[in-house]
Amino acid sequence: MKLSQIGEFGLIDRLKEKVFQDDHRVVVGIGDDAAAIRASSGELLLVTTDVLVERVHFDRRVHSFRHIGWRAMAANVSDIAAMGGRPGHALVSICLPGNIAVEQAEEIYEGMQAVADEYDVHIIGGDTVRAPRELVISVCLTGEAEEKTLVTRAGARVGDKICVTGHLGGSRAGLLMLQPAEDLAGSTTGSLPENEWSRIRDRHLWPRPRLREAQLLAAGGSIHAMIDVSDGLAGEVGHIARESGLGAEIWSEKIPLDPQTRRVAEHLGAPALEFALHGGEDFELVFTSSPEDTSRIAEKVQERTGTPVTVIGEILPQKEGVVIVSAGGSRKPLRAEGYRHF
Amino acid sequence: MKLSQIGEFGLIDRLKEKVFQDDHRVVVGIGDDAAAIRASSGELLLVTTDVLVERVHFDRRVHSFRHIGWRAMAANVSDIAAMGGRPGHALVSICLPGNIAVEQAEEIYEGMQAVADEYDVHIIGGDTVRAPRELVISVCLTGEAEEKTLVTRAGARVGDKICVTGHLGGSRAGLLMLQPAEDLAGSTTGSLPENEWSRIRDRHLWPRPRLREAQLLAAGGSIHAMIDVSDGLAGEVGHIARESGLGAEIWSEKIPLDPQTRRVAEHLGAPALEFALHGGEDFELVFTSSPEDTSRIAEKVQERTGTPVTVIGEILPQKEGVVIVSAGGSRKPLRAEGYRHF
Repeated sequence: MKLSQIGEFGLIDRLKEKVFQDDHRVVVGIGDDAAAIRASSGELLLVTTDVLVERVHFDRRVHSFRHIGWRAMAANVSDIAAMGGRPGHALVSICLPGNIAVEQAEEIYEGMQAVADEYDVHIIGGDTVRAPRELVISVCLTGEAEEKTLVTRAGARVGDKICVTGHLGGSRAGLLMLQPAEDLAGSTTGSLPENEWSRIRDRHLWPRPRLREAQLLAAGGSIHAMIDVSDGLAGEVGHIARESGLGAEIWSEKIPLDPQTRRVAEHLGAPALEFALHGGEDFELVFTSSPEDTSRIAEKVQERTGTPVTVIGEILPQKEGVVIVSAGGSRKPLRAEGYRHF
Repeated sequence: MKLSQIGEFGLIDRLKEKVFQDDHRVVVGIGDDAAAIRASSGELLLVTTDVLVERVHFDRRVHSFRHIGWRAMAANVSDIAAMGGRPGHALVSICLPGNIAVEQAEEIYEGMQAVADEYDVHIIGGDTVRAPRELVISVCLTGEAEEKTLVTRAGARVGDKICVTGHLGGSRAGLLMLQPAEDLAGSTTGSLPENEWSRIRDRHLWPRPRLREAQLLAAGGSIHAMIDVSDGLAGEVGHIARESGLGAEIWSEKIPLDPQTRRVAEHLGAPALEFALHGGEDFELVFTSSPEDTSRIAEKVQERTGTPVTVIGEILPQKEGVVIVSAGGSRKPLRAEGYRHF
């Protein structure tokens, strides 16, 4: 059997059945943003890992080494945030090909350190080895959480509103604008004003995990499920629905897209909604809460952090499936079409 | 500057100065086998990571997928053991090239799981991504330890005896016997009896971290420094000396080599001592203790585990350097010549 036949999640499902085991200390094991382990004191230790591979996750022609490091660390911080945790200590494994200079390797770590400084993470070790060809960075990040405010993907309830922080699709739009012109079949960035160009580019290059927002959400105790957007909204809503054993509907006209993302989409002749549904690492948060709590929660987050919260859909019974509803009311299955690894 | 100019440890030193920070919770940070973090209860959380890269650490022509998985997990267990800790929970990041079948990927995890079962480790998550070409496996393992029995590389004292468990050099000897004949300039394995061949091959393929021995050593409270042998004895003794700010001498005729390793060396016309000094992943333990405690400790380990402990040298003042003393009494600087990543 080829990997391409079952895909990444198919493989994980198989491994889950065959290999991974939980013990009584594991509060959350494989299949969520981070694993949570009962520490002796009752406080939970969180631990997560994310790996970036050259020519899969990044391209040295468009991504600086500093950016690569930033993203490697940001992805992990975002995972800890999405559990309602506080990030703690990071181990960095890095496989460096011979064509990378010391200074370039250091730039990678500087990018990681910039995120670490901003989010109070301490890089405390790792492993540094040679790579024959492609650069690979694997970060393992620990965190802490209290059991009563831990938020998983699995807690959604029928009738919950589905909410999202900030705006979606910006990371994909920024990435497209960074592609070398020859990869875009003749498109250029020339017709976008520089300030819009740089703003959308930064959405891709320097994503900021929503840690403060996540902590506010978790501390309030009224949200039921949460996940960060690292592979497009469609996939993330699907994860919440699947892990909660429920269905969901997303209202396409409610999905928050910022004006730059729309402009890039127009410019490239692509539908902006696709950037949000199937784009990459926006690192926004998707969460669910009871309808009666939703406005209060949204206002609190907006007031304390300046980050908008938008209601984009609703949790349904499992038999309804996971669908997207157009402005005109037509329903279509919502399928994850994020990056396919195999 | 090229990486080859400063090497792996030069790079780590630079990163240590520029990037890595400790906070008050980090009892042991970068530069030891594992990082130790003060948990809220006073119990320490250990966390370590080790990455294996195809064509650097293994070769699919000679290493089965199960073996690759075994080794990836064993290396981490050995690191936790060398701190005097108990291994806990593992995250596995794996980068899989398209030419690996699902079954083969599963064999990798089965190899990891076999170690996990033996050492009471729980694999609780990770990340699974595509690799353009080379297979990469990064394991992050947590563990626990009590602060009073934690053993680092840095605690050696002048006059301490340097001891090693088991026998050294077997992993390198086994690896050499596994090389395809064309890589060995005409040597073949034909002249070694099959039972000796398989025993030495297994030393390379299925190394068993010395967890029980390490726990006995740590619990006794009388050892001062400890490290596992993952890159040859010379390098490991150098690490203890350097981290302790001291010198050391190793007595070449005392280094424990088993008969199979000597036979392989003879067979290949190579000095067996080199296998021990500069060979790979024997996963034996090197530790130091006061001369008056050494025999008692060695006897206890041997009695309880069946694993021999051999005194192979002594910790000296820093100005003496790190040397190897021949049977005839001549002294030579002992230099690490393990695998050079860059």
